[in-house]
Amino acid sequence: MNLDLLIAELVAGKTAALARAISVVENTRPGFERLLGEVHRSLGRARRIGVTGPPGAGKSTLVERLVAQYRSAGLKVAVVAVDPTSPFTGGALLGDRIRMESIALDQGVYIRSMASRGSLGGLATTTREVCDLLDAAGFDRILVETVGVGQSELDVGRMADSTVLVLVPESGDGIQAMKSGLLEIADIIAINKADRGGADRMEHDLRTAFELGLRSRKEIPILITEAVRGKGIPELMAAVDALVASRRASGAFQERRRRNMEDRIKEIAEFLIRRNLWSASGAEGKVAAAAESVLSRRQSPYQGAQALVKEVLR
Amino acid sequence: MNLDLLIAELVAGKTAALARAISVVENTRPGFERLLGEVHRSLGRARRIGVTGPPGAGKSTLVERLVAQYRSAGLKVAVVAVDPTSPFTGGALLGDRIRMESIALDQGVYIRSMASRGSLGGLATTTREVCDLLDAAGFDRILVETVGVGQSELDVGRMADSTVLVLVPESGDGIQAMKSGLLEIADIIAINKADRGGADRMEHDLRTAFELGLRSRKEIPILITEAVRGKGIPELMAAVDALVASRRASGAFQERRRRNMEDRIKEIAEFLIRRNLWSASGAEGKVAAAAESVLSRRQSPYQGAQALVKEVLR
Repeated sequence: MNLDLLIAELVAGKTAALARAISVVENTRPGFERLLGEVHRSLGRARRIGVTGPPGAGKSTLVERLVAQYRSAGLKVAVVAVDPTSPFTGGALLGDRIRMESIALDQGVYIRSMASRGSLGGLATTTREVCDLLDAAGFDRILVETVGVGQSELDVGRMADSTVLVLVPESGDGIQAMKSGLLEIADIIAINKADRGGADRMEHDLRTAFELGLRSRKEIPILITEAVRGKGIPELMAAVDALVASRRASGAFQERRRRNMEDRIKEIAEFLIRRNLWSASGAEGKVAAAAESVLSRRQSPYQGAQALVKEVLR
Repeated sequence: MNLDLLIAELVAGKTAALARAISVVENTRPGFERLLGEVHRSLGRARRIGVTGPPGAGKSTLVERLVAQYRSAGLKVAVVAVDPTSPFTGGALLGDRIRMESIALDQGVYIRSMASRGSLGGLATTTREVCDLLDAAGFDRILVETVGVGQSELDVGRMADSTVLVLVPESGDGIQAMKSGLLEIADIIAINKADRGGADRMEHDLRTAFELGLRSRKEIPILITEAVRGKGIPELMAAVDALVASRRASGAFQERRRRNMEDRIKEIAEFLIRRNLWSASGAEGKVAAAAESVLSRRQSPYQGAQALVKEVLR
């Protein structure tokens, strides 16, 4: 593979090159470090918007509508669907992909699901690197959507410039969201499926919760949407844009990128250390010896690990 | 807290001490290293049995019935319900706990759900350490059950002596299980909810898949169960026991414990390194400097992380 050509075509916005570059990074294939190093100069244009919330909140439909909205504003949009690799969500994922077919044939749209794990120090890090490639390929907006259930809901907040939390009025999700820490990572809340009723009450409850100090920042925009019928979507897009603009002015936008970057660098560093550690010559034997000594009860697993760390880091 | 007293009471099988010890380990509170180091001498009695499978397969009911079966054989049984910390599974978990009330008041039974993460290098490692405490407290069988959806389904295979995969006949779970790698970690398959029909066909399909080489080991026991009515449960218990006996004879049991232990020690070692790395004096400033240099595009995140690793490991 000619890496220089791949990078040139990627930055020129060629879809085939993008798909290939993502696959190189996702599977940490030879050259992936150089690829990431090279594209880095072309970054900074795309805004990364996380979309999170419980299963059944209508995130995929909302994302699809948001994509159409951005498209009609002349922007190129990418969607990254993050799946926490459950062996059993294959079906659901496929469903999402099919639903998104209405936008999938548009040249200004790119949809990718991320189901791999382990490479590059975890799904969060890999997703961030893939967002870099999309950024370099000239997309204006990258929507990072959580698909499954799990850690990814919280992780998405750590890689986005702003995060939309999607809730449905009736399901008690508001209370769950308050308990779970999701409110803390939300920058904007969309109360979706408003046709079911109860949206106003949920908004009231959320505002009360904020007043009571259940979240460190008090005022965040709460929007009522009905994604299936496209209701509230232009307002949601405007709210996201307005938020970014005001944050840029206050410096909060840059501050968040800085914090996210620290987090990301630490994760990659941990990945590198792990990789070097266990692939070093003799490491396997040392691990085996430690396990042996634990199984014969000379030390606890914790003590064995402590001794191992001392030895491998020497 | 008097740690010596706690350990003595734990090993004597006192429930209050057990609960307290688990909480110390789960939250890595002061003394947790010593606690784990001390109990290690009292281990080895309990068999650890993983129970995994898709949501809705009836795992909790099956576990409840298995517990009753072991109790009637005079054995003490603990159940560890592993939840991959979704912010939105609170309800489901609670449901499981209520359902298990029929066995929860029995003194020879202990039920604990694990929803924490991060401590001790991840849920898998923490679960293993909690199993050690249960082992030390004198339980004969520990059933480790996955509750949510996610990585935990595969992880459970890495901490158990044997793993039961629970499927339901009609849902296409067989095919999903084949695709996902779950068949590979299963030692015994229970086709549950057999009253729905299709169980025989599913068994046939699974056996065909094995014949075709879709799994490295060809022959594994497949049992038909109907947990709600207690059908097939004595046979399942017998199959687990027989498997352990034959594996003990062949050495496969010990070999698996050895492999699991290597895995576990590596995870704890990674946790220790991570902890030391970022809490060292000056580490924060180094991370901030690396982030700064990436954000000003002097290097890529990957290069920043590489430089950071060199510096912090020096």
